[in-house]
Amino acid sequence: MDIEKANLEATTRMMEARPVLVGLGRALDVVPGMRENLLLHAGPPVTWERMAGPMRGAAIGALIFEGKAKDEKEAEALIKAGQIEFEPCHHHRAVGPMAGLLSPSMLVYIVENKTHGNKAYSSLNEGRGKVLRMGAYSQEVISRLGWMNEVMGPVLHEALQMSEGLDLRTIIAKSLQMGDDGHNRMDAGSLIYTNALAPFIVKVAKDSATAAEIIRFLGENALSILNPVMAACKTMADAGHGVEGSTIVTTMARNGTDFGIRVSGLGDRWFTGPAGRVKALYFPGFTEEDANPDIGDSTITETTGIGGFAMAGAPAIVTFISGTPKDAINTTLQMYEITYTEHKYFSIPQLDFRGTPTGIDIRKVVEKGMPPRVNTGVAHKDPGIGQVGAGVVSPPMSIFEDALVAYAEQYGF
Amino acid sequence: MDIEKANLEATTRMMEARPVLVGLGRALDVVPGMRENLLLHAGPPVTWERMAGPMRGAAIGALIFEGKAKDEKEAEALIKAGQIEFEPCHHHRAVGPMAGLLSPSMLVYIVENKTHGNKAYSSLNEGRGKVLRMGAYSQEVISRLGWMNEVMGPVLHEALQMSEGLDLRTIIAKSLQMGDDGHNRMDAGSLIYTNALAPFIVKVAKDSATAAEIIRFLGENALSILNPVMAACKTMADAGHGVEGSTIVTTMARNGTDFGIRVSGLGDRWFTGPAGRVKALYFPGFTEEDANPDIGDSTITETTGIGGFAMAGAPAIVTFISGTPKDAINTTLQMYEITYTEHKYFSIPQLDFRGTPTGIDIRKVVEKGMPPRVNTGVAHKDPGIGQVGAGVVSPPMSIFEDALVAYAEQYGF
Repeated sequence: MDIEKANLEATTRMMEARPVLVGLGRALDVVPGMRENLLLHAGPPVTWERMAGPMRGAAIGALIFEGKAKDEKEAEALIKAGQIEFEPCHHHRAVGPMAGLLSPSMLVYIVENKTHGNKAYSSLNEGRGKVLRMGAYSQEVISRLGWMNEVMGPVLHEALQMSEGLDLRTIIAKSLQMGDDGHNRMDAGSLIYTNALAPFIVKVAKDSATAAEIIRFLGENALSILNPVMAACKTMADAGHGVEGSTIVTTMARNGTDFGIRVSGLGDRWFTGPAGRVKALYFPGFTEEDANPDIGDSTITETTGIGGFAMAGAPAIVTFISGTPKDAINTTLQMYEITYTEHKYFSIPQLDFRGTPTGIDIRKVVEKGMPPRVNTGVAHKDPGIGQVGAGVVSPPMSIFEDALVAYAEQYGF
Repeated sequence: MDIEKANLEATTRMMEARPVLVGLGRALDVVPGMRENLLLHAGPPVTWERMAGPMRGAAIGALIFEGKAKDEKEAEALIKAGQIEFEPCHHHRAVGPMAGLLSPSMLVYIVENKTHGNKAYSSLNEGRGKVLRMGAYSQEVISRLGWMNEVMGPVLHEALQMSEGLDLRTIIAKSLQMGDDGHNRMDAGSLIYTNALAPFIVKVAKDSATAAEIIRFLGENALSILNPVMAACKTMADAGHGVEGSTIVTTMARNGTDFGIRVSGLGDRWFTGPAGRVKALYFPGFTEEDANPDIGDSTITETTGIGGFAMAGAPAIVTFISGTPKDAINTTLQMYEITYTEHKYFSIPQLDFRGTPTGIDIRKVVEKGMPPRVNTGVAHKDPGIGQVGAGVVSPPMSIFEDALVAYAEQYGF
């Protein structure tokens, strides 16, 4: 077994993936294996009983949005009666930030990797504050989802069709030169995204008021490109998955209870441990007491060499997630120690345009005793509330150790 | 004479200026002192005889645009017959990048300093390549100017009216957190600008095709916000001008032949010396042989604490102007040695959010023997060609020495 060769293959496939945002579709129609009574969620598999508050809140909201329940009580009754199934987004080529809830009627972005042909899917971003992905499910939240699904989504689909697709690898690369990290700071990427689509939105929207409303919604949301970028990263990670003998991590995801990883050479098996507490800056009125542990599929960004791994290029992010610009640089520098290579297309001006650290190697993580660093939003631990802060966190070391043991067992050394 | 107090006053006025882009108007109608046969240009005063190639080319183009000449020959004949007057933009509260040509029929941006009430004006940005400001005057250039003046400009004016104006100080501050320097790298600022106006453009444009064309033109031009920002800086600089006893530079401008400065406490007198050769990266097919010396009013950005002075925050700019990210940081660090203060609103994440070096003090420039560093585009030395590169340059030391001598004479020490 030539591990180096396998890891070269896995990381090359990751980097050579060229994800293009091609359109939107209804989850039930386009997401593989989606079914009427299925809700997809972030992270590794989890039961309702063990499910974190914000994910429960999002599930309740999704059932209200679907018209299957009119309130929290009905939604919970339905779930407890066994009428609703839960499966990870990651089992369906999908990803979702925070709770990551995806229900059958929701429109999803469709991202296609033009190099290897695989696709990935993600929900639409709702903006900050009281939003489903943070566990809120008030009428305001449900109404916004309705507008996104019925008004904005179809226009975005038509605009994307007319545009012949947006090359997300190029947009990510550009945004990393503009102070973005590609995960929690996406101010530039979201502007690039809105600007690229605006001329098409104008042409396909039914009237100018609708066009203006959509452009404003996308343009004022500094995370509007987060979900397409996550789906892009998912296509990259999936392209690198399944390489015989590779020790490269191809999934990192949290459900708010557990942090789970999967490894290129170890099939679809999850290695899980407790989701960590986030070292965060809290919004006014909230403290660590209010925080749910680490949650969301957005760590797919770190898995493919951006997010926390590219923080050196995003010094202004520290005003949002705490720390100093020097910490941001140190984070990136440390991640070179646990990764296989430097990204061919994503670079950091501050580090003389060095490629971002790419391809987490479970051997190096264990050897250095250094888990990956990720940055993340923080949801309130109770359903129905929303975001309370943002910060930095790491997965438990045990899951990398478990993966390495499994690797030794599978490959016999 | 309390020089410190005077400089505090001048720089405080500069920083507390709050420039808001309020609309557009025809130069003849809104620019103070504009007249039918007058062309405004960048830098200190210059005669046709001493005028640099690109400025001559722009003057020819402006006369064709105005319908006063049908070609180069007619334009030159008109000028040589004494039918056309030339005066600096700076004598009319205006600024223009590179040749800085402003003719009576052109629409100009109107920027109002809401703190002190003064206004400033600038032309609209044409994008890169073959453009009037670089001395090109082909039919393509004249047609684009016509579209900008007749189609885009009126829509931008109406959009700005509907928006209640754009706070440019806030946009500049934000763009400096996104890898812009506020002069030659304005990728983020131009996206913010386009995004902010797009919803209004959609509403006021006569049809969706026009709206789409305008949004695309602004969005694809990484310098679309340069001219409004220059006018914003002009309102800041003018706010700091005329403070009795102040040694702070309030104008730096080049006409392609001379580099000129003016000083807050020394009235409207220019101190001039030869415009420098730019240390540049050249576009394919061009060399230093092709380059015109330093030209343009865009050094108003460095005058007010951004541009070359904020390069530490814009490491990716070195791919355009040459050098390394470390050079960019060193440039900003050096500029602290010749400036009076650190900007209250403009900061650099890479330097732990330190305010940008602001308010060039002629005493410090002379004492340290260190002229200001500016970054700039480079025009071909001949009329009719256009941009050939971009790089860094400094004004001649002699003009700061001359100003200091004049200061000593005026204030008697």
